[in-house]
Amino acid sequence: MDYQQILNKIYDEIKPLIGKGKVPDYIPALGNVSADHFAMAVSTVNGEEFTIGDADKNFSIQSVSKVFTLTIAMDLVGDKLWKRVGREPSGSSFNSLVQLEYENGIPRNPFINPGAIVVSDAIFEGRGKTKNRLLKFVREVSGNAAISFDEEVAESERKFGNRNRAMANLMKSFNNLNETADDVLDIYFHQCSIGMTTLDLARSVLFLANSGIDPKTGNKILSSRMTKKMNSLMLTCGLYDAVGDFAYRVGLPGKSGVGGGIAAIVPDELTVAVWSPALNKHGNSYAGTKALELFTTYADNSIF
Amino acid sequence: MDYQQILNKIYDEIKPLIGKGKVPDYIPALGNVSADHFAMAVSTVNGEEFTIGDADKNFSIQSVSKVFTLTIAMDLVGDKLWKRVGREPSGSSFNSLVQLEYENGIPRNPFINPGAIVVSDAIFEGRGKTKNRLLKFVREVSGNAAISFDEEVAESERKFGNRNRAMANLMKSFNNLNETADDVLDIYFHQCSIGMTTLDLARSVLFLANSGIDPKTGNKILSSRMTKKMNSLMLTCGLYDAVGDFAYRVGLPGKSGVGGGIAAIVPDELTVAVWSPALNKHGNSYAGTKALELFTTYADNSIF
Amino acid sequence: MDYQQILNKIYDEIKPLIGKGKVPDYIPALGNVSADHFAMAVSTVNGEEFTIGDADKNFSIQSVSKVFTLTIAMDLVGDKLWKRVGREPSGSSFNSLVQLEYENGIPRNPFINPGAIVVSDAIFEGRGKTKNRLLKFVREVSGNAAISFDEEVAESERKFGNRNRAMANLMKSFNNLNETADDVLDIYFHQCSIGMTTLDLARSVLFLANSGIDPKTGNKILSSRMTKKMNSLMLTCGLYDAVGDFAYRVGLPGKSGVGGGIAAIVPDELTVAVWSPALNKHGNSYAGTKALELFTTYADNSIF
Amino acid sequence: MDYQQILNKIYDEIKPLIGKGKVPDYIPALGNVSADHFAMAVSTVNGEEFTIGDADKNFSIQSVSKVFTLTIAMDLVGDKLWKRVGREPSGSSFNSLVQLEYENGIPRNPFINPGAIVVSDAIFEGRGKTKNRLLKFVREVSGNAAISFDEEVAESERKFGNRNRAMANLMKSFNNLNETADDVLDIYFHQCSIGMTTLDLARSVLFLANSGIDPKTGNKILSSRMTKKMNSLMLTCGLYDAVGDFAYRVGLPGKSGVGGGIAAIVPDELTVAVWSPALNKHGNSYAGTKALELFTTYADNSIF
Repeated sequence: MDYQQILNKIYDEIKPLIGKGKVPDYIPALGNVSADHFAMAVSTVNGEEFTIGDADKNFSIQSVSKVFTLTIAMDLVGDKLWKRVGREPSGSSFNSLVQLEYENGIPRNPFINPGAIVVSDAIFEGRGKTKNRLLKFVREVSGNAAISFDEEVAESERKFGNRNRAMANLMKSFNNLNETADDVLDIYFHQCSIGMTTLDLARSVLFLANSGIDPKTGNKILSSRMTKKMNSLMLTCGLYDAVGDFAYRVGLPGKSGVGGGIAAIVPDELTVAVWSPALNKHGNSYAGTKALELFTTYADNSIF
Repeated sequence: MDYQQILNKIYDEIKPLIGKGKVPDYIPALGNVSADHFAMAVSTVNGEEFTIGDADKNFSIQSVSKVFTLTIAMDLVGDKLWKRVGREPSGSSFNSLVQLEYENGIPRNPFINPGAIVVSDAIFEGRGKTKNRLLKFVREVSGNAAISFDEEVAESERKFGNRNRAMANLMKSFNNLNETADDVLDIYFHQCSIGMTTLDLARSVLFLANSGIDPKTGNKILSSRMTKKMNSLMLTCGLYDAVGDFAYRVGLPGKSGVGGGIAAIVPDELTVAVWSPALNKHGNSYAGTKALELFTTYADNSIF
Repeated sequence: MDYQQILNKIYDEIKPLIGKGKVPDYIPALGNVSADHFAMAVSTVNGEEFTIGDADKNFSIQSVSKVFTLTIAMDLVGDKLWKRVGREPSGSSFNSLVQLEYENGIPRNPFINPGAIVVSDAIFEGRGKTKNRLLKFVREVSGNAAISFDEEVAESERKFGNRNRAMANLMKSFNNLNETADDVLDIYFHQCSIGMTTLDLARSVLFLANSGIDPKTGNKILSSRMTKKMNSLMLTCGLYDAVGDFAYRVGLPGKSGVGGGIAAIVPDELTVAVWSPALNKHGNSYAGTKALELFTTYADNSIF
Repeated sequence: MDYQQILNKIYDEIKPLIGKGKVPDYIPALGNVSADHFAMAVSTVNGEEFTIGDADKNFSIQSVSKVFTLTIAMDLVGDKLWKRVGREPSGSSFNSLVQLEYENGIPRNPFINPGAIVVSDAIFEGRGKTKNRLLKFVREVSGNAAISFDEEVAESERKFGNRNRAMANLMKSFNNLNETADDVLDIYFHQCSIGMTTLDLARSVLFLANSGIDPKTGNKILSSRMTKKMNSLMLTCGLYDAVGDFAYRVGLPGKSGVGGGIAAIVPDELTVAVWSPALNKHGNSYAGTKALELFTTYADNSIF
């Protein structure tokens, strides 16, 4: 089977599962999305692309954006970043303050909320400038200059962001934020609001399957060494508190978001992105996770 | 021995201990206070008063003020308050977020920080109006119209109040605050900044030793039933995470503050207040706790 | 009203509540007891006694026995005991291992299970000898030479005692047990199995209301100083994780057991014991707690 | 460079680090081992072998043995095993009871102590029979019929095994053990005591680099599907609470033991085992971890 055949086969199998799970409703902008969407896109390092379903429809990438801010930070700050944030799976919820208090304001990893807030602080150079840099980065790696923040989503995140505000202030009390909580959260809420298509997403992370070089442009986005490390972080920390389950079932580095998107990497070969808004109890797309499990089964390309 | 003799005797014994412990330095306004102060004041329901040491010197009562806001709330809201805050000892630090997260934003009791923040929210009727009400209350029970907020301390609390801000936002995320975090914290930071003398403090809580009636004025401050309950709360929750130790050694309902003050109640007899700025590892006045232990030993008036 | 009238009045009010709650079923010997029992007994330091309900019926005192072993230990070991066990409310379940692990095998207080296991270790002098000493003590303070262990209950405790075994082994791993887990648990399981009547129970703790002296015999059971401290421990730690609630509603030092018994102390006046097998969610007798709340309301004798 | 050249180069670089860290002393049998040992062995699916250092010296594989019992269990019980044990990184210490209590006796994964104890329970068929089965398995996969339990180590583990006994009893209290704690722990303590050489270890796990088939004999040890899943479990859970660090630095599935051994897998290519007794703060071999980091750097064969 070629990849298109695999996607077609997955689509057939996955159809009964689309809509299973729960669309998150903590902000209206997410709660209003229909549970019925499903999309999958493959982008290979050789330049081939394959899609199925609603792959050209925009969705809110939410926490998948943490890959982009972390890439910027790893490029800017390098290994010094690890003085302010760990790189171990947290074993607890992405928005828990318990570990953060026990561990003196050092988040376990850059993919839980407080970790991503620290990353935002590490790349902060003013609200506007940082947001522009992020947008420029995302437009470059996706090759889509139309990608932007969804200000309605960002405002919704801000309005209902008390938990994130609690985490930022707790880290501030431990002197692990340089900027004010409000300034850093402005970046954080905006990065969560980025909208793109499933195909955009597959394209955006393709440099992670290609030793840090964007094969479409030849641009070096991240060093080869840091690219491997980014993939390791995605594998051990990228799926909230279901990293073990995802590694067991899918076997690829990945990063999920509560918008229902997941991006996964097959090193040296391809990236695969899925989107389906209804989430399982761990906050990962229900149908999306299953689709990726079928993908590595049929393509026999898990990293294990 | 009469009470003055007892105070004299305690002063002799306590002198070598004055300054032991650590003056808290998390805000400059507290850190600048000399560790050498010691004061003790007894106020009886019969109108007698006895003092020793710096009993006429102002200090920052900090968390002792939680007794005043809780009195106002118990009078205003009554037992409905317990839907929003528990009445169990926390078994953990006064500013911990761990329990607060596990228990869905319901603080364990009104004397830990998040509990006092909920109490401030429960009596909120505008920043200015609430602060005025509190000031009026404290002036009435102390009989000292000069008592006021120390705006420098309040500003310092605000500036370094990230941990309290984290707690307020966490409770807000659980819908356990009606007002904004900033509005409620303005009340909270101001109540902590109240300055008064040790004698003022002993007078201020005398209604708690007299079934809720201020013996100086005959005014009913709190019902007899609620007064007993307030004393029980002070005994089980009033000394941060050293309530058991304080009950074991002193044997009285009490409330301490990081300013080095402690107010204690001998029901139907008297109140006793101490002040000495250096704190033990639990955040209670080192010399003050010892002085109270000697007081109930010599006066043989623990409640047990 | 005299005490008999008060008991009669309480009985009338409490009748509709008898049986509310849940009889614990973790061991058959407890699960088989009917939920319909209710008894109350008052024993005064002046030698008067008042009872209502099934006050002459035996029941399993379970954790109330922790008062007896702790009395023996405080007499034998004194304040050195506090190197091995704390005296703070735990803020968590009586059989939790979480705090025990965080705090290196030092139980929070002697009334939670691991604390009582340490107490058993502290008074250990051989299985038989220790059990005999305990029995002798209980027979003396109750004045009832027929009181004994219920071997069926003790065996049941042993058989279903895996959680206690986990706690004992955890403390052993922290070197906080001198004897083997099995030896110490033999004492512990037997002390829990002691059977007596509600009137026996009121009599047994009367020394705690009389400065340590048994008024029936004039025997000194505990020093006056240690008696006050025992009462303070009962108030801050004696009611599982409902000490604050019990202090708020009842206002007396007390100790409860999952057999449905509670013993409470009015210093210098009397003791009051209740028994009703159905428990509230905190593991304390539902009707018993309510009856004690009515008792201190009608007799106006809370310590606050 | 070929693999021998790589090993030689690593040995040169690693020499100054040998002995750094701490040899564990919780049992004498481990504490007596010299910190100065270092060994490394590579075994390829093509039948080549490369070694450096003390690769033919026996050491106690301790927790590395969890790979062998889990392989037996996955073969015997299959995916039903996951009803009794999770497959998520724990985010806490390998011998913590905290999570085990919060999560009702279900260990987070099969590589922390309580998880391995459940695995021992799952394959239990009598003490002698189970130990024989395990020994037979290890002899087969290693090709070394002389491999055996070290009874002195096993007895030492039993004697100082109170923490493991606490965990087993806690799980028993949650009905997550079928056999008695003592029976299961007998298996567990013996599996930890297995002694073998570094080369034996590299050979023993070679089936995990070869889709479950032992390339030396052609025997199918585990299904291809289950082999991938075993590797994913090793990556997300195999290095105590340093899985993220190991994935970041080394980038291979691996399993460590407190005896200083680590086995790692390069799927479809080779296995690499290291041994050096002094451990880092996470309980993994200090020099061993560094050697593996150099190995994947020089051989450029991390899975990311």
